[in-house]
Order: sequence, then structure tokens, then C-alpha cells
Amino acid sequence: MENRARVLIDCDDAKGLVYKISKVFYDRDLNIDSNREFVDKENGRFFMRSVVTGSFDIEELDRALREIAPQDAHIRVIPPREKKIVILATKESHALGDILIRHAAGELGASIECVIANHDTLRDLVERFDIPFIHISAEGLSREAHEAKVMAEIDRHSFDYIVLAKYMRILTPAFVAAYPEKIINIHHSFLPAFIGANPYKQAYERGVKIIGATAHFVTDDLDEGPIIAQDVIPVNHRFEWRDMQRAGRDVEKTVLSRALDLVLHDRVFVNGNKTIVF
Amino acid sequence: MENRARVLIDCDDAKGLVYKISKVFYDRDLNIDSNREFVDKENGRFFMRSVVTGSFDIEELDRALREIAPQDAHIRVIPPREKKIVILATKESHALGDILIRHAAGELGASIECVIANHDTLRDLVERFDIPFIHISAEGLSREAHEAKVMAEIDRHSFDYIVLAKYMRILTPAFVAAYPEKIINIHHSFLPAFIGANPYKQAYERGVKIIGATAHFVTDDLDEGPIIAQDVIPVNHRFEWRDMQRAGRDVEKTVLSRALDLVLHDRVFVNGNKTIVF
Amino acid sequence: MENRARVLIDCDDAKGLVYKISKVFYDRDLNIDSNREFVDKENGRFFMRSVVTGSFDIEELDRALREIAPQDAHIRVIPPREKKIVILATKESHALGDILIRHAAGELGASIECVIANHDTLRDLVERFDIPFIHISAEGLSREAHEAKVMAEIDRHSFDYIVLAKYMRILTPAFVAAYPEKIINIHHSFLPAFIGANPYKQAYERGVKIIGATAHFVTDDLDEGPIIAQDVIPVNHRFEWRDMQRAGRDVEKTVLSRALDLVLHDRVFVNGNKTIVF
Amino acid sequence: MENRARVLIDCDDAKGLVYKISKVFYDRDLNIDSNREFVDKENGRFFMRSVVTGSFDIEELDRALREIAPQDAHIRVIPPREKKIVILATKESHALGDILIRHAAGELGASIECVIANHDTLRDLVERFDIPFIHISAEGLSREAHEAKVMAEIDRHSFDYIVLAKYMRILTPAFVAAYPEKIINIHHSFLPAFIGANPYKQAYERGVKIIGATAHFVTDDLDEGPIIAQDVIPVNHRFEWRDMQRAGRDVEKTVLSRALDLVLHDRVFVNGNKTIVF
Repeated sequence: MENRARVLIDCDDAKGLVYKISKVFYDRDLNIDSNREFVDKENGRFFMRSVVTGSFDIEELDRALREIAPQDAHIRVIPPREKKIVILATKESHALGDILIRHAAGELGASIECVIANHDTLRDLVERFDIPFIHISAEGLSREAHEAKVMAEIDRHSFDYIVLAKYMRILTPAFVAAYPEKIINIHHSFLPAFIGANPYKQAYERGVKIIGATAHFVTDDLDEGPIIAQDVIPVNHRFEWRDMQRAGRDVEKTVLSRALDLVLHDRVFVNGNKTIVF
Repeated sequence: MENRARVLIDCDDAKGLVYKISKVFYDRDLNIDSNREFVDKENGRFFMRSVVTGSFDIEELDRALREIAPQDAHIRVIPPREKKIVILATKESHALGDILIRHAAGELGASIECVIANHDTLRDLVERFDIPFIHISAEGLSREAHEAKVMAEIDRHSFDYIVLAKYMRILTPAFVAAYPEKIINIHHSFLPAFIGANPYKQAYERGVKIIGATAHFVTDDLDEGPIIAQDVIPVNHRFEWRDMQRAGRDVEKTVLSRALDLVLHDRVFVNGNKTIVF
Repeated sequence: MENRARVLIDCDDAKGLVYKISKVFYDRDLNIDSNREFVDKENGRFFMRSVVTGSFDIEELDRALREIAPQDAHIRVIPPREKKIVILATKESHALGDILIRHAAGELGASIECVIANHDTLRDLVERFDIPFIHISAEGLSREAHEAKVMAEIDRHSFDYIVLAKYMRILTPAFVAAYPEKIINIHHSFLPAFIGANPYKQAYERGVKIIGATAHFVTDDLDEGPIIAQDVIPVNHRFEWRDMQRAGRDVEKTVLSRALDLVLHDRVFVNGNKTIVF
Repeated sequence: MENRARVLIDCDDAKGLVYKISKVFYDRDLNIDSNREFVDKENGRFFMRSVVTGSFDIEELDRALREIAPQDAHIRVIPPREKKIVILATKESHALGDILIRHAAGELGASIECVIANHDTLRDLVERFDIPFIHISAEGLSREAHEAKVMAEIDRHSFDYIVLAKYMRILTPAFVAAYPEKIINIHHSFLPAFIGANPYKQAYERGVKIIGATAHFVTDDLDEGPIIAQDVIPVNHRFEWRDMQRAGRDVEKTVLSRALDLVLHDRVFVNGNKTIVF
């Protein structure tokens, strides 16, 4: 039976890893469709992503790899299946809209389980696409109380990733800790420039000639998680901060969608506070 | 009564034009909110775009400018009003979808009169946004017969621009001549590279390291009209042509939307086969 | 007698400025070769740069403009003449070398009065181009004592700008105050990201996907002066910090040379902590 | 004895190549410092570049790889040694100057054997760097006669690559055939746009909004060889063609130096009319 899987391995670096792993593939007569490796020399860590095809059993392959890999190895043998995402949003539609259009065209590579928002503004847009929209207002609630409601809703769904499509609320460490390496955010600046509130206003006041956006995994430090993708556009003295904001939206949505595409294709390893992107 | 207008003037260059035009504004006690000029020295042509505010009458201002401008001057005094567009599409949703999302968010700066397509594929997407979708199949029709039906539909609407959002049919000179400086196309290559069919396949076969997209006015020469905006993204040997096509979609939609935004804000002059973009 | 000048005016914004200034040109029968204006609405400040040709006297034109301009106006009527620069460097040759090659090709648009460096490393390179090289070692000297010697050397020269071509010493406020709007620095990061020491190491540790460089006027706040030009290049997980440094050199030298070119063509206005670049 | 080599292999794709090659490394207890593979599925061709360190004999490693590789395999085991280049130029100094500065700073990664030019203009610049400059005028000579003299001079040197640093003469097929995969050219356009003479003038006349440069291997079809690197910069209506030319120089020199760096580090495979760049 013809099968196909993405094999992701990261472990402490050691001699012979490529040989031993490729031997596992060779012994099973697998085709290597693509293969990328990287060694982080500073931390002595090895990363490998292979796409293999052939007649094999996912679990047997997984077991065989575990046998030859170092104790600490993190091994994933991922069969082809559609991933699932939950989206959090607030009021802005550009990043969310881009994902909705890709989804409608069958190009997202994931199903959208639902959109949860702290305002009701985007309901009309989301429901036009027959996707569940859940409004969880934060009014009158403590941050913790609001988050508890959001988490309860999230946990009703099965999902691979939580996508913050311009979700304009700060997450508590407890929220972040509940979904490690699962939350992807788009920050509207070229991090680490302009951390914090209203980066476009900060950029305007600093008089920069380039603005940008950053997609990253969310960790407990605000705007400090591993960066997946960044991009920039030129601006000039004619841009007031609202012009920067307007122009920046195109970068934000493109960078978020690109990062999401990488993550959904299992192309991203988290390596401490950095990413390896194959 | 406080008024506001965009003033666009192009004429043969001559001494004193800025003085004479700014005198017209000064005599009426107008504020100049922004002002840009350019002289094409090769062709001796002057271009100016001003945004003025104050207490004035549009028609009186227009008459006053005609009095001081050279005979050949092309003068437009444009009051603030929403523009209207008609969109032509085929099967691909990314460029169209980007425009629909902007429209839904109130960020397009134009109303969409209708979407006309030679396939029925996009009906569902367009109708989700309560915008009229008209399917005019080309099956069994000569190019001229099909275009006659499309033009009949277009002419039922009042509009400022026709936007070809990946309309994959070649237009006849008669069609183009009917809407001079009114048709905006997105071409999926960095023109003038890869004119013609399947530019991504051409780009793949040529082994380029950068691909792009070009938004331009349509004139009778295929892919040869005045360029409004272009952008590019890097590719590498791992991209097969379908990967280029997939990656290119983001550039296409961004470039088309940026060009459309410029045109809708009356920032673009056509100057022979080129554009002046203020 | 045919003459030519760049006219730079900045002043508090007021109605009729363009009219009054262009009338001065018109009354003298001048050609406006190029003309750009900008109004900083936040601060109510007007900026204009014109290139005029015709039969006129520089000083008379200057007087006439002062008569019609507001009291606070900053007016410069600049005849065509080669500007002069003094370069400060340390050990790295890429930014300096780029300037030397442009100078040798007659493309710099300025004469290089001398290169002053706190190490002797670059002597050979500079003297190959027959340009005076002055080594002023900082060894055993306080920052103030070293700067006093550097300033004494600088002040022996007549110059328009001091170019810090990777001068790796922090300047004292006294030094900076002595040459207001005259010192141009290249900072090896995309400011305001990675202010301070070894930005490439900071960038590596943060795991960014893009690095950059920033050319700016030097004011007393370290790395905080008005930005003239910026550019970026993509990096990825395979870049160690020395690879970023190596790749960054191309951006640094290009951005510095571009900024220098703008400044030497009188295209840059300082506007508080920002620049207007025409 | 600790040794180090770059191993480059390309051959028809087959199952087990990575396994067999990494086994050769493993059996010799080599460290793989970096490793990249690519399979061109369209043509069924496998490419691999590894950097290995350890105690090994270059020739023995080469033999061992030949034993396990397919018959058609192209195998190179390259020990660390400085490469050598010959430069051809005409009158423009920017691309040449950039290489000279890198060379003087010890950052080129190659020695420059000589600069050969069909004009004497650049002699002063080259000789400042104590590099032999040979002027071979084309005046009064047929293309073939001139080339014969140039080839005679080239062949007096031992070299790895011939770098055309804005050598403004068309090469005959005989010249190109004499140095297969050895000639690197910088073309002053974003190929395949603007093939042929004066691409900046063509770009200006077409009204493009982006210009670029392309570094490529030279094959017998003019401007048609495998592309190594490309880059672009934005332009606008204010650029006359000479402004484009001036702005383009920065891209030209950067792209050429980047391509040269890739080639000198053995990172480039030629694959038909394309390149694989690791």
C-alpha cells in the first residue's frame, strides 16, 4: 500500500545521524521526496525533515526511528491529513479575511473550526463563509475571567493551531502555557522594533523609512516568541501613522498567511527562542 | 461652504505654470493640502496634482483653471465621491477575494457594481458578499460574440474603472478602445519579462531567482499598457512552476489592490505608455 | 548669464506659500526644473525644494525669498559647487571602500578632505587613493582627550559633512553639538531594533528573519538621530551572527552611500527627529 | 590528520543515494558540518553538497564515493584552497571596484590574477591595488582577432573563474565554449527582461517601476545562461534612464559579488539552463 509521511526529527547532534536515519528509509525501500537538515552548532542540536513515500506502516517507521535515534530525540512521523485551526480575532478584518478567502478557495490546507472574537464586528464576514463565529465579550470581566471563557470555547474544539489574526488582547502566561508551540500571532511591526502598543504610531514618531510585520509563536514574554516569518515595505515622510497602518495591513496579512502555510506544512521547528524553517 | 477637491492638470510644459495655478488657489483663499508636480522633460509635459480645501465652487474653480492653462491642458477638478468599479474574473479567487474583503471592510474606496465572469466558479464567493455575479460563458461563441455580451453587461452599469482580476481572456482591440484608460489588469509576471501565456511556467523554465506581478492599464497591445505598480518575491531551485504560481498569488493580489487604490485616489496620470504616480 | 540653484525653504505653514515662492521665480523668468513640497500637518511645517535655472543673481534671489517668507523661514539658495566631506573610520573597509571607489570614479559628488581613524588598519587602503589618512589612536586617552584631538584635526579642514563610515566609537554630546546636522552615521541594524553594541549578535540571538542597516544624522542620543535611509536583507536559521555581519556589510555600504548621495544633493530636510527626503 | 572538504555530487536520482553517501562518511568517522540535497524531479537528477571534517584522505574519499555512486555521477571532493579569478572589464568601475575592495580586505575568498580590459580607463584604479592590468584594445581588430589576444592572455594564467565585471563586448561562441561553466557575467537588467543593448534605456522607455540586475554563467546564447543571483530596486517616473543606470550600479555590483561569493564557496550547481544554489 503506497503511503506518504513527513518525518521530523530533532535531537542532540551526533555523528552518523543522517546515515542511520537514511538507513531506516533505505531498509524499507522508501523514496525520499525531499530532505533537509540543519545543525545548530551553538547548541549542538540536529534537525531533519524528510518527506518519504513508499509502502510502509507509519507506526512501524516511527518505532524504527526511535530505535536508532538518541534518547532525547523528538520524532514525528506525520501522515497526510488536513490540519485544523481555531482563529481568534478582534475587529480588523484583513488578516482574518485573507485566511477566509484561502479557505474558501481550498488553498489554506486546514479547516477552520471556528472564529472567536472579543467584539461582534466580524460576525457578518465570518458567517458569510458558513464558519462558526463566537462572540465572547470582555466587558465587565477580569482578564482571567474572559480568558477562562475563551479557553472553554477553544477546548470544545479539536485543533492543531490557534491563530491570532489581529487579536488585540494580551494573553496571560496561563493561557500561553496551556497551548505550547500552538499559538501563532501576527505582530504589526518588524520585531524587535516597536514592541508593545500601537507600533505604527511608534514607527511614525521614530521616522523610520521601512515598516514591517512579524509572525511568531506566542510564548509568555510579550512579543518575544520564536519568529516564523517577517516582511517589510518602504514608507516615507508623506506617511502619517494611519497611512502606515493602512499600508502595513497588506504586509501583516501576507506574513501571517505565509507563516501559517509553513506551520501547516510542518516546515517549522522551534529551537529555543528561534525557528528552523525548512 | 467648506469644500474639497482633487485638482489634476497635465499640459505642455511652460514657464509660470506653478505660479499661475497656485495663484488661482490663492485668489480663492484655498488651502493646499498636498501638492505634487512633475515635468517629463523628454516630452515637455507638465503634471500636477493638488488637493485643495476651502470655500469654493467646483465648476468656478474648473473654469478659472482653464482660463490660465494652455489650450491643450487636460484639467480635472474632482469632488469627493465614491467611485464605482466593474470586475471581470475567470476562476481564480485570490485577486478578486482581496478586493471583496477590502470592500466588505469599507477600505476599498469604491463600490463594486458587479462581477462578470466567463466561468461560474466564483459565483458562490461573490454572492456571499451580496454582490451581483453575472456568468457569461464563452462556450460556443466567437471571441467577438462573447465580448459583445460582456460589453452589453458592462454598459448596463455606471462605473469609473473595469478591473481585470485574473480575467484569463485576451481582449480585442475593439473592447480596449471602448474603455480608454479605464481598464486595469494584473499580469502574473514582472513585465516585460514573460509576456504571454503561463508566465510562471516560463519563469520556471528560465530558472529565474525572482518572480513578480504587474498592474497596468490595458491598451491594444497585449501586456504592453502603462504600468501602474509592480512587485516581486524571491524564489529558488526548490520551486516548481506550481509553487511559483502559488507564491505569486500573494504578489498579484497585493499589486492589483495597490494599483487600484492609487487609481481610485486619482494618483495616476497616463503619460504615453508610462504612468506618473503621485 | 545662465545660472542654476537649489532652493530649499522650510517654515511654518501658511496659505499662499507656493504662490508667493513661485511668483518670485516667475517674476525673474526662472525655469523650475523640479519642485517638491511637503506639509507636516502635525507640526504645521512647510518644506519645499526647487531646482531653478535662468539668468539670476543668487543673493538677489535669496533676498527676494526672505522678503515674502515668514519670519521663521529657513532659506537656502545653493549654487552648484562640489561639497566636501571628512570621513571617520575604525578598521572595517567596506563602507569606506565604497565611498573611495565612487570618489575615484567621479561619482561621489564630493571631495574627500581626509580620513581620520582610531586605528591604523585602513591607512594602506586610503593612501592607495592619494587621500590623506590621519591615525589618531585612542590608546591611553580619555574619551574627551581623544575627541579633542579628532576635533582639532577635523577643524583644520573646510567641510560640509562628517561621515562616520563604521566609526566604532561613541561620540560625546559635546562632539555632536559642535557639528549639528553635519554628522552622518551608518548603524548596522534596522533601527530602532538592536540599539547598542553588536547588533548582529543581538539579531542572531533574537532569531530574526530580516536584518538591515540605517543611515542617520547623529544627535546626542545614541542611535536616535533622524533617519535618512534604511534597507534590509533576508536571513535564515543557517546564518550565524558572523554570517549576518558579512551579509550585512553590503546593506551597510549601500545604505550609507545612498544617504550620502541624498544629503550631498541637498535632498534631505531635518524635521525634528525625522527627515523629509525629496 | 584533521582534514576538511566540500563534497559535491550530482547524478541521476536513485533510491538510497543519501544512505550510501552518508555511509561513506560514517564509515570514515567524518563529521558532516553541513549537508544539503535537492532532487530535480522533472529531470530525475540528484544534487548534494556536504562539508565534512575528520581524519581522511581526499583521494581515498573521492574513490569511495565513485564506487557507490551511479556511473554518470559528477563528483567533486574539494579541499580548502584559495581560488583564483581573472577579471574582464571595460570602462565602468563599480563592479570591479567592489571586487577590489573585498579583495583588499581579505574578504573575496579568491586571488585576482589580473584584470584585462578593452580600454585603458581602469588602469589607474587596478594598479592602485597592485594587481596586473592588461589593456587589450579592440581597435582595428576583428572580434575574432581581439578575442584571440584576450584568450592568449587569459590562458597565461591559472584560474578557476573568469568574471565579466561589466565587460561590454559580446563573446563569440568559440570563446564561451573554451571556458564552460567558468565565465560569470553581470547583466544590467532583471533577465529575461531587456535582453540586449542598453537595458536601462529599454526599462525607461517601457516605464517599469522596478529595475534589476542578473548574475549568470555565460553560455553561447547571449544573456541566456544559468542565473545565479538576481536583485531589484524600485524606480519611479522621476527616473530618467541615466538615473536608472546610476541607481542600478549598486544592484549590479552587489549581485555580482554575491554570485561570485556563492560560486567561490562551491555552492552553485549548473543544472541545464538553471542553477541549484545551496
